[in-house]
Amino acid sequence: MKAMIIEHYGDPDVLTPAELPTPEPAPGEVRLRVQAVSVNPVDFKWRRNGPFKTFPVVLGWDVCGVVDALGAGVTDFRVGDAVYGMVRFPQEGRAYAQFVTAPVGDVAHKPATLSPREAAALTLAPLTAHQAFERMDLRRGQTVLIHAAAGGVGHLAVQLAKVRGARVIATASGRNLDFVRSLGADEIVDYRARPFEEQVRGVDAVLDTVGGDTLPRSFGVLRRGGTLISIAGQPSAEEAERWGVRAERILVYPSRAHLELLGKLVEAGRLRPHVSQTYPLEEVAEAHRALETGRTVGKIVLDVG
Amino acid sequence: MKAMIIEHYGDPDVLTPAELPTPEPAPGEVRLRVQAVSVNPVDFKWRRNGPFKTFPVVLGWDVCGVVDALGAGVTDFRVGDAVYGMVRFPQEGRAYAQFVTAPVGDVAHKPATLSPREAAALTLAPLTAHQAFERMDLRRGQTVLIHAAAGGVGHLAVQLAKVRGARVIATASGRNLDFVRSLGADEIVDYRARPFEEQVRGVDAVLDTVGGDTLPRSFGVLRRGGTLISIAGQPSAEEAERWGVRAERILVYPSRAHLELLGKLVEAGRLRPHVSQTYPLEEVAEAHRALETGRTVGKIVLDVG
Repeated sequence: MKAMIIEHYGDPDVLTPAELPTPEPAPGEVRLRVQAVSVNPVDFKWRRNGPFKTFPVVLGWDVCGVVDALGAGVTDFRVGDAVYGMVRFPQEGRAYAQFVTAPVGDVAHKPATLSPREAAALTLAPLTAHQAFERMDLRRGQTVLIHAAAGGVGHLAVQLAKVRGARVIATASGRNLDFVRSLGADEIVDYRARPFEEQVRGVDAVLDTVGGDTLPRSFGVLRRGGTLISIAGQPSAEEAERWGVRAERILVYPSRAHLELLGKLVEAGRLRPHVSQTYPLEEVAEAHRALETGRTVGKIVLDVG
Repeated sequence: MKAMIIEHYGDPDVLTPAELPTPEPAPGEVRLRVQAVSVNPVDFKWRRNGPFKTFPVVLGWDVCGVVDALGAGVTDFRVGDAVYGMVRFPQEGRAYAQFVTAPVGDVAHKPATLSPREAAALTLAPLTAHQAFERMDLRRGQTVLIHAAAGGVGHLAVQLAKVRGARVIATASGRNLDFVRSLGADEIVDYRARPFEEQVRGVDAVLDTVGGDTLPRSFGVLRRGGTLISIAGQPSAEEAERWGVRAERILVYPSRAHLELLGKLVEAGRLRPHVSQTYPLEEVAEAHRALETGRTVGKIVLDVG
C-alpha cells in the first residue's frame, strides 16, 4: 500500500511516499481502507520532534474509512461498515496510508449525514474539546472563554460548549469573526483589536488551544475558583495558586463512547465539523505547511480514497 | 518483577511463576503497581487456547493498582493515583504481574468507596453488561432475561438493568436464588427446577452469558422483534430470522468513559461488585480451576500487592 512516512524528524519535506506492507488487524482490531485523514497541530509538532524512537514512522491518527478486514473476535463491526475515529493516539497512528488498523475501542460508526472528509475531522479535535469540558465540568449557565475559536479544536469547542448550555466567549480575528459568530458564540473577542485580557474578566473557565503566552495571560481572566484547561502547554502551578484557580494540561485519549456521543450530536443537528481545505495524501507536506501558519480555519483533511 | 506466565496453551498448570523485566510505560500509558486482578472466563478459555502466537504470554486484563510511572504526555493521572480498568483487551493484557502498563483510555480513577479487590472486579464484567445493554438499547419498561445472574457478568448486569429501569428476569439455582433477589431482580427463574424456556415468554431482550445450548434455547423466549445478545457464543443468523429477532455476539472493548459511568453508579449506591473468593497471584491456577467449575458466584480476584 501507499503511505507517507518520515525517516527522521524535520521540516515538512521529511514526509515522503513509500510502499509498505498492508497491515493485518490484530485481535480486537479492524482494518480500514482509508478514505480521509485529518491533520492536527500534533502532526507537525511530532514531525518536527516526537516521542518515537524508531523509524520509519507513519503519522496520522484521525481517520475515516471502510472496514475491509476484521481481527479475531471482532463482532461489532462488519466488512463494509463506514467508521471513523482517532486511532491509537498518542502512539504511532499510521493513518497517512491507504490502510490502517484500529482497536475497536478507538472507532465508531460514521454518522450517516457526514461525508468521509467531515467524519475524519470529527475526531481528535472534538474529542479534545469534549474531554476538556468534562475535565472542567462545564455546566449550564457557566461562562467559558475559548481561544482560537475558528481553529480545528476551537470551532468544535464553541458548538460543544453551547450544547452544554454554557455562555461562550470566543477569541478570533479578521474575517473569522463572522464564522465564529455563526457557530453560536455569545460574545466575540477580536484579540487583534485589543489584548483579550483587557476585554474579558471573571469567566468560570478557559479552554486554551493556543499555548505560548496565551496560556499565562489567561489566568487573569478567570474568576477565583475558575478552571483553566490547556491542550497546548503546561500551566504553572505557582501561577494557578497565586490566582486561586485550577489549571491543568490535558492529552486527548481515544474513546468510542465519546465518538458515539459526538455522532448523536451531529445527527441531532447540533454539531458540524468545518473542513476548509483538502489535499491529496501525497501532498501532506503542503497540508502541514498550511496548518503551521496558524491561520487556518476549521480542519484540514487529506483525501486518500 | 514477579509475574505468572504461560509458555504454551493447556490446563491450569501451564500458569507458572516467572521473573520479568518491569515494563516501561509507552507514550500515553501509565504504569500501575498492581494491587488486585480479577479473572474472567476468557482467562481460562485463552489459557486453554487463545489468539496469541508468541510466548510467553502474561494473561490478565482486569486490574486495580496505583500509578507509579507516567509515559510521555500523560497529564490526567499522577503518580500515586488509584486507578482501575480493563487493559488492552483483547490483546495481551499482562496484568498477572506486579506491574502493568495501561493506555490512559483504558483506565479510570478508582471509586473511593471500593476496595482495590472490588475495583478490580468492576472492569470486564460490568463493561460487558453495559455494552450489551447499549447494543440492545435496553430501556425503561422493557423486560430482559439475564442468564447466570449470580455470575461475574450476571450479578452486575442485574444491577445495571435495574439502573436503566428495565424489568429483570434472572436465572439462577439453589442457594444463589436469594443472592440474585438481593441484587434487585424482579423475577427469579430456577433453571434447575424446570427448563427456563418453559418459564419465560415474550421478553424484549436476552443477555446470554453462558453460551452452549443456553444460546439456541433462548430464541423462543423472545417476543418477535426482540434482541438476543450473547457474550459467549455466536447466534445462528438462520435461527434469528426464523424467530423474527435480532441476535448478535459482542466482544467487550476498553472504555474509560464507561468505567467513569460505572464509578458514578457505585458512588450513587446503585452498583456494587461482589467478590466471592480471593487467591494470591501465585495461586492463579487455583482461581482458574474454581472459575472453570462454572459454579462461582460474583467475581474471583487475585491479590497482588
